[in-house]
Amino acid sequence: MTITKSYAAQNATDDLAPFTFERRAVGPHDVKFQILYCGVCHSDLHQVRNEWGGSVYPMVPGHEIVGRVLEVGSHVEKFKTGDLAGVGCLVDSCRECDNCKKGLEQFCRNGSTGTYNSKDKHTGGVTYGGYSSEIVVDESFVLKVAETLPLEAVAPLLCAGITTYSPLRHWKVGKGHKVAVVGLGGLGHMAIKFAASFGAEVTMLSTSPSKELDAKHLGAHHFALTKDPEQLKSLMGKFDFIIDTVSAQHNYNDYLQMLNTDGVMVCVGAPPTPSEIMAFSLIGGRRSLAGSLIGGLPETQEMLDYCAEHNIVSDVEVIKMSQINEAYERMLKGDVRYRFVIDMATL
Amino acid sequence: MTITKSYAAQNATDDLAPFTFERRAVGPHDVKFQILYCGVCHSDLHQVRNEWGGSVYPMVPGHEIVGRVLEVGSHVEKFKTGDLAGVGCLVDSCRECDNCKKGLEQFCRNGSTGTYNSKDKHTGGVTYGGYSSEIVVDESFVLKVAETLPLEAVAPLLCAGITTYSPLRHWKVGKGHKVAVVGLGGLGHMAIKFAASFGAEVTMLSTSPSKELDAKHLGAHHFALTKDPEQLKSLMGKFDFIIDTVSAQHNYNDYLQMLNTDGVMVCVGAPPTPSEIMAFSLIGGRRSLAGSLIGGLPETQEMLDYCAEHNIVSDVEVIKMSQINEAYERMLKGDVRYRFVIDMATL
Repeated sequence: MTITKSYAAQNATDDLAPFTFERRAVGPHDVKFQILYCGVCHSDLHQVRNEWGGSVYPMVPGHEIVGRVLEVGSHVEKFKTGDLAGVGCLVDSCRECDNCKKGLEQFCRNGSTGTYNSKDKHTGGVTYGGYSSEIVVDESFVLKVAETLPLEAVAPLLCAGITTYSPLRHWKVGKGHKVAVVGLGGLGHMAIKFAASFGAEVTMLSTSPSKELDAKHLGAHHFALTKDPEQLKSLMGKFDFIIDTVSAQHNYNDYLQMLNTDGVMVCVGAPPTPSEIMAFSLIGGRRSLAGSLIGGLPETQEMLDYCAEHNIVSDVEVIKMSQINEAYERMLKGDVRYRFVIDMATL
Repeated sequence: MTITKSYAAQNATDDLAPFTFERRAVGPHDVKFQILYCGVCHSDLHQVRNEWGGSVYPMVPGHEIVGRVLEVGSHVEKFKTGDLAGVGCLVDSCRECDNCKKGLEQFCRNGSTGTYNSKDKHTGGVTYGGYSSEIVVDESFVLKVAETLPLEAVAPLLCAGITTYSPLRHWKVGKGHKVAVVGLGGLGHMAIKFAASFGAEVTMLSTSPSKELDAKHLGAHHFALTKDPEQLKSLMGKFDFIIDTVSAQHNYNDYLQMLNTDGVMVCVGAPPTPSEIMAFSLIGGRRSLAGSLIGGLPETQEMLDYCAEHNIVSDVEVIKMSQINEAYERMLKGDVRYRFVIDMATL
C-alpha cells in the first residue's frame, strides 16, 4: 500500500484541507500512476457540499486525472512504467451486463464505481479521487494519453470532454447540421470545439453579450442573445441539435422551440429541480429532449485519440492545490475560462 | 357548389346543431365524396369548446372521414366515381417546402390546412370538417381506402390510427422490443394493436385494474397497475419505447424511469399545462422524451394499406348524428370503447 497525500473535504461546510490515506497495493490488473494534473469539475463542488445527497466524508474529489505510470501489475498489457495515463469519472463496473459489454459502463446495470465518493470494491471503503498524489486503477478503466498535447489541458477532456463528445457522436452531428450550444462553461466550451470540429455550423446561445467574442474564438460561427425577443424569434425551428450544458434552473421550452423538425436537444447539465415542458413543444416538429451521461470507456479513448489527432484541448487556468477553495468560489461566480486544473506538483 | 348538411358548433358553449353550408365546386384536382362515417376525436371537443384557443364559429368538426367518391375533377388520377376515399386531419399544405416534399405535410413550413377550423385557401373562409354529408378535397390529400374492411371501423384510422402508427414506425419498433402504452382510449387501443402487430412485447400501463381484460383482448401481452408501488418498481428500466396517449396532466418522470438505456417515450397526447421533468430522468440511461403529430400523407396511406393487409381496424361504437352531444359527454367520462363513429346516413 502507498501513503498518498491529498486534499479532502471532511464535511459539507468546511474548506478542503490536506489529508493522507493509503492506496491499495498494485494488483495484477492494476496501473498505479503519479497524478500530474487534475481538473476541477462543478460536480466536485456539488458533492463536496452534499448538494446531490449521499456524500461520504472524508471525500477526496477529482475525476479529470492525468499522470505518468509508476508501476503496473503482472497482467497489465496496455501500459508500462513511464507511459502517460488518464482516468475519468469511472474506475470500475460489473463488466458483465449488456451495457458494460457494449462499452456503456456509465449505464452499468449493477452500478458502476465512481472515481470518488463511491463504494470501493477493493478496500470495502469509499473511492478517493484525483486531488491526490497517486492513484491505483484497474487498467480497463485507465485511458491512454498522447504525449503531444499540453497535459494540463488534456485533464478536463476526461469529464467535460467526453460529456460533450459523446452526445454529439451518438446523435451523429456533423457537416450540414446547425448546432446550438447553451451555456459557456467547462462543458459548453468543449461542445463548441467538438461540434465545430465535426463540421457543424455552431451557434452560441447566451444571455450575456460578453460571451460573444470568446464563443467565436472557440469556434462558434454565430452568437445569439436569448434575452432579445427579436433574435429569439429568428431562431425558431432553426437547429438540428442543441446541447444544453446549464445546470441551473432554466426554461427548456424556449430552446425546444428553436429545434427544427426531428431536432434533438440533449441535456448534459442537470438542474436540481424539475423543469416544465409543454408537450406541444415536442409534438410540433417531432422533437426530442434527451439526456446524456459522460461516455463509456471505449468512447472516452476514441475521444482522447480524436483530440490528439485534431489538436483539441480544454482552455484551462492552472492553479495550486492550496487555491482549490478559492477556485470553488470563483467557479460559482462563473469566473473561470473555462476549467480550473490543479497542478498536483503543488500538493 | 353543393349545399351540404352538417352539424356545427355556433359557439364554445352551446350544443352542436344542424347547419347548412356550401362546399366549393369540384376543381380539376378535386375529389368530391359522400361522407359515410366520421370518427369523433377528443380534439373535436377541445376545439368546439375553444379549449386550445383560436376556434372560429360556426365550426363543423370531424377529421376521421371515410366515404364514397361522387365526382372527380378533370385532372384527378387516383380516384374515380364510386371508389372509397378517406380524409384525415389535413386537406392542404404548401407542397413546396422541404417537409412537404419529404411527405411530412403535418410539419409544413408554411402551415398546413387542417380539415376543419383552418383558413380555407379556396373559399377564403374557414374549412369545415366531416360532421357533414359531403366534402371536396384536393386528391393529394385524399387517401385510398380498401373495400375489405368494415368502413365505420376504418374512419378512426385517419387520426387515431396514424397518430400511433407513425411514431412506432419512426422509432422502428418491432420484434425484440418491449413497448408500454399509457392510456387506453382511442389512441391507446390503436397503439396496442399496432405495436403487437409489429412484433413488440406490449405492456398496458394503467391506473385502473378494470382495463386489464380489454388491454389483453386488444393484444397487450402484459398489464401493470401504475398505482401499485411494487409493480412500479419492477418496471424500472424495462421498456425500449413508451407511447403516452394521455392528454390529461400526469407525471412524466414515473414513466421516463421505466425506460431502458436509450429508451424513447413519445407523447401523442398533449396536456394543456406543462409537465415537470427531472433532467436526471433523461440523463440516467440516455433516454429521450419526444413528441409526434399524426403523420404525413404517404405514411397515412401506408398505414391504411398495412391495416387492410393485416386486418386492423378500430374498435368503435357507431352513433347517430343527433347523439353527438351525448357522445361528447360520454367521451369526457372515458365511457367509450374506443371510438365513437357517426353514421352520416343519419344526418
